[in-house]
Amino acid sequence: MDRSIAVPAWRPDRGPYEDRVAVEEPLEIRVNGAPIAVTLRTPGDDEELAAGFVLTEGIARLPADLGAVEAIVDIPPDARGNVMNVTVRSAEPAGEASRLTGRPAFVTAACGVCGRGTLEAVRRRAQPLPDGPVVPRAVLASLPARLRSAQPTFDETGGLHAAGLFDLQGNLLAAREDVGRHNAVDKLVGWAALSHRLPLNDTLLCVSGRAGFEIVLKSWIAGIPAIASVSAPSHLAVAMAEEANMTLLGFVRDGSFAVYTGRERVAE
Amino acid sequence: MDRSIAVPAWRPDRGPYEDRVAVEEPLEIRVNGAPIAVTLRTPGDDEELAAGFVLTEGIARLPADLGAVEAIVDIPPDARGNVMNVTVRSAEPAGEASRLTGRPAFVTAACGVCGRGTLEAVRRRAQPLPDGPVVPRAVLASLPARLRSAQPTFDETGGLHAAGLFDLQGNLLAAREDVGRHNAVDKLVGWAALSHRLPLNDTLLCVSGRAGFEIVLKSWIAGIPAIASVSAPSHLAVAMAEEANMTLLGFVRDGSFAVYTGRERVAE
Repeated sequence: MDRSIAVPAWRPDRGPYEDRVAVEEPLEIRVNGAPIAVTLRTPGDDEELAAGFVLTEGIARLPADLGAVEAIVDIPPDARGNVMNVTVRSAEPAGEASRLTGRPAFVTAACGVCGRGTLEAVRRRAQPLPDGPVVPRAVLASLPARLRSAQPTFDETGGLHAAGLFDLQGNLLAAREDVGRHNAVDKLVGWAALSHRLPLNDTLLCVSGRAGFEIVLKSWIAGIPAIASVSAPSHLAVAMAEEANMTLLGFVRDGSFAVYTGRERVAE
Repeated sequence: MDRSIAVPAWRPDRGPYEDRVAVEEPLEIRVNGAPIAVTLRTPGDDEELAAGFVLTEGIARLPADLGAVEAIVDIPPDARGNVMNVTVRSAEPAGEASRLTGRPAFVTAACGVCGRGTLEAVRRRAQPLPDGPVVPRAVLASLPARLRSAQPTFDETGGLHAAGLFDLQGNLLAAREDVGRHNAVDKLVGWAALSHRLPLNDTLLCVSGRAGFEIVLKSWIAGIPAIASVSAPSHLAVAMAEEANMTLLGFVRDGSFAVYTGRERVAE
């Protein structure tokens, strides 16, 4: 599945040329056969995206509840490749999964199912993260440049969100790109779930965009103790990171950063 | 309603200080009393946001279908200010509005209700835009700097999306900021609707972020013939702009830009 495609373009200073743009296509996510969401995403890591979405939105409460993640093929040809089903084994069939499947939500590139309902739901199912680890400043400051070196589709298109997971020494564990910044995080969480690495208590997350409420929420569900954003956080992101006992860094640039919550994880 | 608030922060090179971050709060949008969406937004232009959302999502087909836009006050105190109702007068009560109100959608800062259903819906209700106008290159290239000078909350917080509407000489008509880039566009469309300026056939839109499918879709519904984005378009945005007979510019920076569709509106 190509993540970028060629399109004709023209510049005043250059004339006609061939440019490459990021692919953006809808993905329908089903749980146990029932559609629960449509998200606009960059194709290519759809098993991870579907698994991550189902976990971070609380439709599956535990990684162990995740069963098979499969592309649906018994559909019209033009939709093939754009529908994934996640089997969720749950001891609580009347829980959130069925609540959500009874009320389809349509979501796009930059979001998940959210709002006050989700805020309440996450408070019910997530505990504050444990204290630690403590991470050297230089490692935290280095994350955006390390992420930037793992963005092949950004290199081709000049514009695409990315999220990267790092170990506590700043080594890249995995990076994912997407037209939607929330999708990039869901792909990472799905990657961790499918490779049995959850919870991600000894990792650092770096995101190429701003840190909003949902980035913090998804990271909390995955157990990630620290987020480094190259841009600004929102006030709801700061409030939720505080509640999660999570470290939230913004404006990670030029060798420095701003710490909004969880300063005790930043080595003095 | 404050668009930014003070939070405690700390920098390795500075120590503790007071920073300002953009406010992000959920807004529930109701149509004729029924909830249709929850979006995370920066408060302050909620009538415009609600009116614009209802129009660009096709819940009201025509600006003349929009009735009163009012804050709901008969709700618990902590939700006050975060629920807006839009009265939609429609000759088609069994149309899209009731389809949507029968199936609540939960959307977030960077999105609207979308996916293939919306793509089909917009094809049914939108005609390709008329040819023209033709705009000087220098005007198009100047839009990001002109928008940048009308972003007071970005100045305070260092990170917030913005969208601006300009006349064909590049004069700013209106600018709006939001944690969600789609919300910023909806606020502009709502502003135009509430001041009886739709369709916006003689305007130019500039957005501070990437140009995705939904930015193009919302602009098409509002009749905007040209979009200038400071960053990259997605392939679905290019495809939809082509279908809409719209001019789509990307990477509007440093006095130049890339034209993806509608080059005939760019003066040679």
